[in-house]
Amino acid sequence: MEIERPYLLFLGDVPDALAAKTAIGIVDWRKDWCIGQVRLPGCAADTGLPDMSIADGAAAGARTFIIGAVNAGGRLPEHWIASVVEALEAGLDVASGLHIRLRDVPAIREAADKTGRQLHDVRHSTMTFDTGKGTKRSGNRILAVGTDCSVGKKYTALAMDKAMNDRGYTSSFCATGQTGVFISGRGVALDAVIADFISGAAEWLSPETDESHWQIVEGQGSLFHPSFAGVTLGLLHGSQPDGFIVCHEPTRTNMRGVKTPLPTIQQVIDKTIQCGRLTNPDIRCVGIAVNTTAYGEEEARAYLAKVSEEHGLPATDPVRFGMDAIVDKVSAEFGAP
Amino acid sequence: MEIERPYLLFLGDVPDALAAKTAIGIVDWRKDWCIGQVRLPGCAADTGLPDMSIADGAAAGARTFIIGAVNAGGRLPEHWIASVVEALEAGLDVASGLHIRLRDVPAIREAADKTGRQLHDVRHSTMTFDTGKGTKRSGNRILAVGTDCSVGKKYTALAMDKAMNDRGYTSSFCATGQTGVFISGRGVALDAVIADFISGAAEWLSPETDESHWQIVEGQGSLFHPSFAGVTLGLLHGSQPDGFIVCHEPTRTNMRGVKTPLPTIQQVIDKTIQCGRLTNPDIRCVGIAVNTTAYGEEEARAYLAKVSEEHGLPATDPVRFGMDAIVDKVSAEFGAP
Repeated sequence: MEIERPYLLFLGDVPDALAAKTAIGIVDWRKDWCIGQVRLPGCAADTGLPDMSIADGAAAGARTFIIGAVNAGGRLPEHWIASVVEALEAGLDVASGLHIRLRDVPAIREAADKTGRQLHDVRHSTMTFDTGKGTKRSGNRILAVGTDCSVGKKYTALAMDKAMNDRGYTSSFCATGQTGVFISGRGVALDAVIADFISGAAEWLSPETDESHWQIVEGQGSLFHPSFAGVTLGLLHGSQPDGFIVCHEPTRTNMRGVKTPLPTIQQVIDKTIQCGRLTNPDIRCVGIAVNTTAYGEEEARAYLAKVSEEHGLPATDPVRFGMDAIVDKVSAEFGAP
Repeated sequence: MEIERPYLLFLGDVPDALAAKTAIGIVDWRKDWCIGQVRLPGCAADTGLPDMSIADGAAAGARTFIIGAVNAGGRLPEHWIASVVEALEAGLDVASGLHIRLRDVPAIREAADKTGRQLHDVRHSTMTFDTGKGTKRSGNRILAVGTDCSVGKKYTALAMDKAMNDRGYTSSFCATGQTGVFISGRGVALDAVIADFISGAAEWLSPETDESHWQIVEGQGSLFHPSFAGVTLGLLHGSQPDGFIVCHEPTRTNMRGVKTPLPTIQQVIDKTIQCGRLTNPDIRCVGIAVNTTAYGEEEARAYLAKVSEEHGLPATDPVRFGMDAIVDKVSAEFGAP
């Protein structure tokens, strides 16, 4: 699934920025792929892109209308349908990360069939994959893993990709979740794949590449999360990382949405190595990325220094302190670019 | 998905018994649920059930026509479609474990819509599940795990279920694969579930039950198989077994279909305990089930004695020597019935 660019981002009339986090994530990382935003009256979110009508966006060259917001329940509100139909009729493809399939909405299906435009439901891939093979592929890979869900794995992978490129490596970001797919322009949400094909899809998402190239793979779930560990393990086996970064949120006590206690960073390192060895015997941890939002700057630095010393690994907050310490570690372990 | 009984088994015109292994598996374990078999001219498989026409089967009270055979490629041969339509028109539901969806065949869809009969595609569930919760449920569970795929996990679980009931426990078999679903009359093929819901589906398949009841859960894949370990881990977390049985095929050197070497039995025990503790801290191995087909009886007994001594656990071939040794271990660990 390749999503054509540039994008026109649709924010609907969502009541706050959180509901538009997909659009905001796209603008954070791929602002130059975006032409503008389309907002309905009452919309309280703002990506900072120019506001425009669908017609203006089409005239400016937009190729895909991205539903970059979500209402409560993940449904497509009745009054957003007209905007989707208008985008199709203006000649744009439409991409969505909602739980509902665009094609299941009759007015949208009819407009897509009439105009011949593509509908991309990244949560409902019709793609088929081979089962995973476990064979070593050329190129180098880094996977973000986590002590839990929603601890900054996507942000960490994107920041690492940017830092690697800034430091002279050639690197690309491999998306495994819906927002990530919009940011990479390619892929499927791994948690929406049929279970038999998780590792096969992960192999497809991080394919064979040049010996010098680095793929920075977005993580999913946690090996210690009782809801999603199967997805995490399939992704680990399929992406066969040479290095991994452990992402952590230090104020959390329970795994998200369940009563299971959070594992320690060391437990995540140990289990990732144990399991990852199946498809890459040389797998190693290259750093720890901590979301230190809850701490003041002093406290954050002290916490990271302690984590770094405890594990003998660089520890950073990607947002506050950047990824240079972890790129240094990659350089020391695997060589300069 | 509940599949109504009794069954009428359709064998088509397959060229050998292997192609009818679904039907043969059903008859091995649930002969009393089956009224007869329907075979087309040239069929070389035989379940031993009485041959009958579809009309005779319907008149004898059959409720579901089960496609119990598969041709090369897992497709539905063109000349089998008339039999499926005839079964629907005779008032039977139709169940299939083929890769193709029955509903995607126009003549079958039309006949089902016209007659109001159910089509069960156990590989393509339309069921929705919650994500796994990881909360401890009442009742007792035993899971079959394996050093590889296709090492006898289904057979072991069915034999254990039978032996537990024979020994005075109340026990039921929980299916996680297509043939198993026909044998239990309930369930979905776990490898066909959307990745996000693997452990949730496993929780649904082995629900809360009486404190004294045992659920014997069919295993899938292997934690060491690079194609399917994600499914295996989600099943382990969702089924939260109190005990597990390691299934092994001693002549195999590589994991099925890939180049990964086979793990040892001890590695499987250790990793199953490490991972299974997340949802059941008291998980323990209760025995080892070995497929000793390749050995003579003396050699098989010697091999099992060695495996048993090495691991301090009962080791048996379920087909040759039954499951009593492992039921004894369950009784010693968890109490008599």
